[in-house]
Amino acid sequence: MGPQATWDEVRAFVCDTAKLEATAALLEWDDHTYMPSKAGGYRADQVTLLSGMIHRRLTDQRLGEMLEQLSTSDLMSDPHSPTAASVRVLLKDFKRNSRLPVELVEATTKATTLGQQAWEAARAANSWNSFEPHMETIFSLKRQEAELLRDAGTLYDALLDQYEQGARSESLTQVFAGLRDSLVELVKRLSESTHKPNGHAWNRSVPVELQRKTSRWVAERIGYEFKRGRLDETSHPFCTTLGPDDCRILTRFQTEYFPSGFYGTLHEAGHGMYEQGLPTDWYGLPAGAAASLGVHESQSRMWENFIGRSREFWQWALPELQPQVGGAWNDLTAEQLFRDANRVQPSLIRVEADEVTYNLHILIRFEIEQELIAGDLKVSDAPQAWNDRYDQYLGIRPPTDADGVLQDIHWSAGLIGYFPTYTLGNIYAAQLMDAARAELGELDRQVARGEFEPLLSWLKRNIHNSGQCYHPGELVQRACGHPLDPQPLVNYLRQKLEPVYGLA
Amino acid sequence: MGPQATWDEVRAFVCDTAKLEATAALLEWDDHTYMPSKAGGYRADQVTLLSGMIHRRLTDQRLGEMLEQLSTSDLMSDPHSPTAASVRVLLKDFKRNSRLPVELVEATTKATTLGQQAWEAARAANSWNSFEPHMETIFSLKRQEAELLRDAGTLYDALLDQYEQGARSESLTQVFAGLRDSLVELVKRLSESTHKPNGHAWNRSVPVELQRKTSRWVAERIGYEFKRGRLDETSHPFCTTLGPDDCRILTRFQTEYFPSGFYGTLHEAGHGMYEQGLPTDWYGLPAGAAASLGVHESQSRMWENFIGRSREFWQWALPELQPQVGGAWNDLTAEQLFRDANRVQPSLIRVEADEVTYNLHILIRFEIEQELIAGDLKVSDAPQAWNDRYDQYLGIRPPTDADGVLQDIHWSAGLIGYFPTYTLGNIYAAQLMDAARAELGELDRQVARGEFEPLLSWLKRNIHNSGQCYHPGELVQRACGHPLDPQPLVNYLRQKLEPVYGLA
Repeated sequence: MGPQATWDEVRAFVCDTAKLEATAALLEWDDHTYMPSKAGGYRADQVTLLSGMIHRRLTDQRLGEMLEQLSTSDLMSDPHSPTAASVRVLLKDFKRNSRLPVELVEATTKATTLGQQAWEAARAANSWNSFEPHMETIFSLKRQEAELLRDAGTLYDALLDQYEQGARSESLTQVFAGLRDSLVELVKRLSESTHKPNGHAWNRSVPVELQRKTSRWVAERIGYEFKRGRLDETSHPFCTTLGPDDCRILTRFQTEYFPSGFYGTLHEAGHGMYEQGLPTDWYGLPAGAAASLGVHESQSRMWENFIGRSREFWQWALPELQPQVGGAWNDLTAEQLFRDANRVQPSLIRVEADEVTYNLHILIRFEIEQELIAGDLKVSDAPQAWNDRYDQYLGIRPPTDADGVLQDIHWSAGLIGYFPTYTLGNIYAAQLMDAARAELGELDRQVARGEFEPLLSWLKRNIHNSGQCYHPGELVQRACGHPLDPQPLVNYLRQKLEPVYGLA
Repeated sequence: MGPQATWDEVRAFVCDTAKLEATAALLEWDDHTYMPSKAGGYRADQVTLLSGMIHRRLTDQRLGEMLEQLSTSDLMSDPHSPTAASVRVLLKDFKRNSRLPVELVEATTKATTLGQQAWEAARAANSWNSFEPHMETIFSLKRQEAELLRDAGTLYDALLDQYEQGARSESLTQVFAGLRDSLVELVKRLSESTHKPNGHAWNRSVPVELQRKTSRWVAERIGYEFKRGRLDETSHPFCTTLGPDDCRILTRFQTEYFPSGFYGTLHEAGHGMYEQGLPTDWYGLPAGAAASLGVHESQSRMWENFIGRSREFWQWALPELQPQVGGAWNDLTAEQLFRDANRVQPSLIRVEADEVTYNLHILIRFEIEQELIAGDLKVSDAPQAWNDRYDQYLGIRPPTDADGVLQDIHWSAGLIGYFPTYTLGNIYAAQLMDAARAELGELDRQVARGEFEPLLSWLKRNIHNSGQCYHPGELVQRACGHPLDPQPLVNYLRQKLEPVYGLA
């Protein structure tokens, strides 16, 4: 069999596996949206069964042999061609997956499906005790996984690599430390300002019925395609892809706090537009998949923060939104909304944090999960460690575990090593924005006119269309001309926030 | 391996297959409810892949061998025990499924998934031509299937047997013919009455927002459990089971025609309560599955018609519903609603037909699909045959194919041999109602008080809890003491309708 025929067979096999993965994703989307309350146990069994079947396919011996053959064939001559990149990533994944026994994969799936259900209940009831045994099980399983996956580096690195290929905790710690010093300094200066945004714009009550419409409207205006997606509600917003033309986003609304649903939507729509911009012909293969979680997060952060919290955005959006929010904003100016969208103050909930302190929330989770995986911290001590660090980095202490260690879904879902990609995303986003602004020339004026297509096209050309044809760092470097560098993020935050706080 | 160990292995294997079937059912439920419009092609591929995987499991050689062993073991000593009944049905299904090549199963799944999508569009656009090629493909595949399945009897019988075990078109034709003569005579007498219900009660416009709430309310009141189900909207109402604690119902609302959503909900809730009443411990096995489609339909018809169109139901429901429909019904009496719910007149749309003419709609479909499968009628001639028969049996001719041959989803979904089970359900329902009324003593007074639990409990005891431990005919006979007999249905219709029409 020649390499082309081998590749055709691999491709068909891998794309069938992707159909099962998309099916499992639908089971999970439904679990988070419309599933009846008593159906959770059986749903966990279904997801577990599918995860086992998928794992058996991912580790199929014949697949591995064909990938080995292809990896030395002439199909690899251009390493960045969709085929060569796909073969390279598939072989790497095959080798990694082959280290994990199906029993561990199934046990992890079951533990995390039940874990998420337990987390949902525990968070609502502020009951760490009911969640702790699930957390024990999940971290124990993830530690086993890390031990099987580790080559060089720490156990934690073995998990991190799944979300951000090639990332290492040591170098991330350095990058984050530098960022932290700049941000702590900036927070301090802002806190001493006498010209702070007062947040009054967000005190207006807007009925959820209306917020549903504004969210749908803004997602559509920035370029999220509803014929290939939809917007639903859930307790922990996310974005999930169920097929080449089916990427769904979810948000949550609070009558008394408009930004929760609105910025949640901009964020998830940013993820969704990346997925919708991937080459559909390559769906199910690495060349049709997002480069990394960090790059993914750069897209969501860009639309949520760099665009959605800009002065130009509110100049465009306010007159459009005023008729949509039932009179609640009639006396507001774009400048007020812009200022209140840029209020910086230490707070308890990550997903509602401002752009500056957000990265400190990430740092706390990054440190705690490293210690948990290394065995330096016991699961039962996690709430205490969490609260102590909030004291230390943010100067506030969560009054309840629901506002503390229980606030995020990630650990219950087995997503360990995932959090640092959020800050990586912020860093990438700043680098990409600089590049896009330089190339587009009048980006800010386009935003002020509600023209988002030029930026989206730039992102499609420079990021989305490439799938995984380049390593994440390489992809961003090609787009902006520089390797990973936190300085553009620091510059962006200073340049935007100092004038807001009367410090410029 | 002893029979118990063999059974344990069979049971685990079959229950895993059921998890995949429930997963495919979710893919289909989503296709009919929330899936983005452009996602249909990939969804068809997913359902097709799963159907192939399921078929391979259903025809697994080792499964067949184990079932053969079990079928002569001492586990079969009580033929109506859950285990014995499950082994018997599983072996029968295994033998039937083993006659169908996986290619045919996958081709049928793909054709019917695409067929339903095409039907949806064709019905909306009144475009028979766009649907005809799908119909050709589907009937051709079903004919191949029937040829492989047929033992004795006609090709049509081979399809019918999948929905109603043991039914034969010849005997059904006889039962239906007798019923038809009585019903045509009744319709004629009613049409000559000078005291007809005028239907004005249903002319009141009720906003869909309110109808959603009334439908949910009534489903809950009659006993459908929302913690184990949900109510959604779709173009062709149905009920689908996605797990032991997840049975979902769907209806459709029309602002100007309240009964559409309301009776649609009662009907589907009747199906749903049957599914919810099956023994959950046996989920995935025949002992935990509905006895047949005819028995299923007896449950939906009972709640929709025998209960929901009774005088006592409206005596209870009107004062409850008046505050829920926003003033639209303030001047109505229970007697008016009861009369208008029992208006008999020939009409075009089956799902909106009255209880009497409904069976004539079924007869038309039963005749046409038999001719199509036998090859006596060409698919391209189906619209003409349809319209001619509506002329002949009901005295009206559909002005469009959307109101004619395109109105039902069934053929697009490959459900051929399914229609006669609707009339079987009506016959069974009348027999069961007589038995329940005799045993409960004061059923009508209970309904007038909104007490539905006694009837539901009777149904659970006599029908739901038995799963497939008895053949459908046997199950109904045990519950009511008589074999299949259309006379109770005729008596029920005469006794209810003659007074309404001033003929008693």
